[in-house]
Amino acid sequence: MVTIQQCAQNIGKEVELNGWAYNFRSSGKIFFLQFRDGTVRIQVVYSEADITPEAWSALEGLHLESSVRVKGIVKEDTRSPSGFEIEGKGFEIIQLAFDDYPISKKEHGPDFLLENRHLWLRSEKQWAIQRVRNTVINATYEYLNNQGFIKIDAPILTPNACEDTTELFAIDYFDLGKAYLSQSGQLYIEAAIMSVGRCFDFGPVFRAEKSKTRRHLTEFWMMDAEAAFVEYEENLKIQEGLICYIVDSVLKQNQNELVLLERDQEPLKKIQAPFVRLTHKEAVAKLRALGSDILEDDDLGGDDETILTKQYDKPIFVEKYPAKVKAFYMKRDLNDPDRALCADLLAPEGYGEIIGGSQREDDYQTLVHRIEEQHLSMEAFKWYLDLRKYGSVPHSGFGYGLERVVGWICGTPHIRETIPFPRLINRIYP
Amino acid sequence: MVTIQQCAQNIGKEVELNGWAYNFRSSGKIFFLQFRDGTVRIQVVYSEADITPEAWSALEGLHLESSVRVKGIVKEDTRSPSGFEIEGKGFEIIQLAFDDYPISKKEHGPDFLLENRHLWLRSEKQWAIQRVRNTVINATYEYLNNQGFIKIDAPILTPNACEDTTELFAIDYFDLGKAYLSQSGQLYIEAAIMSVGRCFDFGPVFRAEKSKTRRHLTEFWMMDAEAAFVEYEENLKIQEGLICYIVDSVLKQNQNELVLLERDQEPLKKIQAPFVRLTHKEAVAKLRALGSDILEDDDLGGDDETILTKQYDKPIFVEKYPAKVKAFYMKRDLNDPDRALCADLLAPEGYGEIIGGSQREDDYQTLVHRIEEQHLSMEAFKWYLDLRKYGSVPHSGFGYGLERVVGWICGTPHIRETIPFPRLINRIYP
Repeated sequence: MVTIQQCAQNIGKEVELNGWAYNFRSSGKIFFLQFRDGTVRIQVVYSEADITPEAWSALEGLHLESSVRVKGIVKEDTRSPSGFEIEGKGFEIIQLAFDDYPISKKEHGPDFLLENRHLWLRSEKQWAIQRVRNTVINATYEYLNNQGFIKIDAPILTPNACEDTTELFAIDYFDLGKAYLSQSGQLYIEAAIMSVGRCFDFGPVFRAEKSKTRRHLTEFWMMDAEAAFVEYEENLKIQEGLICYIVDSVLKQNQNELVLLERDQEPLKKIQAPFVRLTHKEAVAKLRALGSDILEDDDLGGDDETILTKQYDKPIFVEKYPAKVKAFYMKRDLNDPDRALCADLLAPEGYGEIIGGSQREDDYQTLVHRIEEQHLSMEAFKWYLDLRKYGSVPHSGFGYGLERVVGWICGTPHIRETIPFPRLINRIYP
Repeated sequence: MVTIQQCAQNIGKEVELNGWAYNFRSSGKIFFLQFRDGTVRIQVVYSEADITPEAWSALEGLHLESSVRVKGIVKEDTRSPSGFEIEGKGFEIIQLAFDDYPISKKEHGPDFLLENRHLWLRSEKQWAIQRVRNTVINATYEYLNNQGFIKIDAPILTPNACEDTTELFAIDYFDLGKAYLSQSGQLYIEAAIMSVGRCFDFGPVFRAEKSKTRRHLTEFWMMDAEAAFVEYEENLKIQEGLICYIVDSVLKQNQNELVLLERDQEPLKKIQAPFVRLTHKEAVAKLRALGSDILEDDDLGGDDETILTKQYDKPIFVEKYPAKVKAFYMKRDLNDPDRALCADLLAPEGYGEIIGGSQREDDYQTLVHRIEEQHLSMEAFKWYLDLRKYGSVPHSGFGYGLERVVGWICGTPHIRETIPFPRLINRIYP
């Protein structure tokens, strides 16, 4: 038994394959079976004369999405995505699917597809997106390991909230009152860098935000990386390196998937360091020149990001936002203390933000002052402040949203297709 | 700037290192600094004559856990865990720690240490455990990737419960009522194998169980793997391969950590395939001969596992449990339909269960019947049943608890030390 992917090593040989019949048509004595096994898709061509009457009759009684066993000879075929075709010699049904498979070639509405996500995942494009997602995950581990980052899993259940609780999901935690589902592991991995030097977490995070846009999920995967003794500029270099490595890995390992997704690969090939850098000030000026009504101290909106990223064919670091629109833990720019030493990375082609990062404030007194200034709970941040009391170091970090990175690379308009089982404000099933 | 780990490539050369002073003592004109930077630990020896008066006075004013910059010459030293020692030539304090660092060499109670987990993580053994954990994670990705498994992230937020809700954490999910935190992604990745063939998930899962044992956490990391067209025997082979690969990776990559943890490595070196196999029936007979009062149809208790695993120096598959003590989705043994085609893998040295796995029931009618028999909600399993209607295939899977695997390999008596920020029924902070 081999996989379709292994056909390359079996040209001219007879192979046996297990998988699913995702489409078929017959023209008299010839039967064309579209066959998939999870690794790639291939066409099997049967001639009635070549196979047993039992096999031929099984083909004639086939239903979509049945599981089947195929025997045949591997032939090269440059028109096929796998590069091969099978000359069918044997056929057997493992389970004849019920004949009402709900997803057909015709267009379905998104609600119907989401309701059938457990089946929709099999569709060509959904399969391709999950394969790209897998490459993005693995490339992230590889790159970060090579840069000396180890994985530290931040907790999901967190104690009394550091921030406004309106966007948090709450649970009752035994006798300890409410606990909240984490929005980010950053603060926790800041503690861990004092132990392991460099680390990252990569897990689900949650937002109870009532947003219903093509870029929001209530549950999504986030990668946060943090490094001791890494300052602002080096932090950007690590991000550039990571994004280039991810895109390069997908270009190398997912050609078949990118073709299925009809993804124009030229823009991806242009993802090379160094990326474009614009200060927030420059970005605002440019946006205003392009017609946006953004004000000097505004955060960039989604529309602003779209406009801006269409001006360049590389990702853009928008740097040094007004400190007041950014989080309290960001270090300030020494040359302009109203600005944070931060950068958001915007993906090109109108895609927008995929990474947020900054150097972190490492001075104890400054941080105490910030927490007071912003009326945050000193008690909740007690442990976090300890990190500045005992061996504080200059350090920086950044985080990416996995679904946004996958969405950009795949060219998927709606983020809901980039996660296996999307959770939206009106969707928790299946 | 290099890391301590990179000293091996710099013997005889002067290097600069950033890190933390975790211990020190002075004897007159000589100062011994115990220095760590996340990668490994090293001793730096200063002679007053060799350094500036400023550097010497900085050394004399040093506090535990201060962040410091060290300059010196790398010397080989076979007694040191790193294999090296630094002859100090320069010293600078980055941040002088407050002089009340709460964790000292003296024994602290577990509550105190858990309350200071954000600092306790820096302690030698805690650092070592996290490094081993990282190796276990990476080895899992490597092995599974090589076996053709891709990562499919199962959702954490799940709809109305498939099982008894008393052990589930509940949240209010917008207008959709209650949602529950996942206890396992297995059912979801069963859907995904029909798309990608083989897959795994690896993420946090949650148990609201009121257990307070050395083996329970309310939040822990679980790896679930599932493969289409893999039957019972092959499923065990994959598990054996994975566990051998993990242990071998730790033995190769974490010698320093295992020594720090005082882990006897001889038992780990014996982890070679094939593992011991005992049917549940044989296990019960053996346990009763050894004095246990276990009954024929009982599940194995923690004590039983301890007794049993002390009889062998390899992991044990306990196979074919009475179906009634196992989950409804397990396939039955054709030769003995009261038994499930399942196996739990017990780690040696008294450790006990680290993996549970089985072949899954793939027949639609049989599964419908099971759900009825066990009075489970047909509605909740509607989508899961679809998987048996459309292209069902023989398939199997298994899951390991990351903290249990790490605990066994590190020889850590209590599981709470194997996760960066443990969540227990009485602990949600920090």
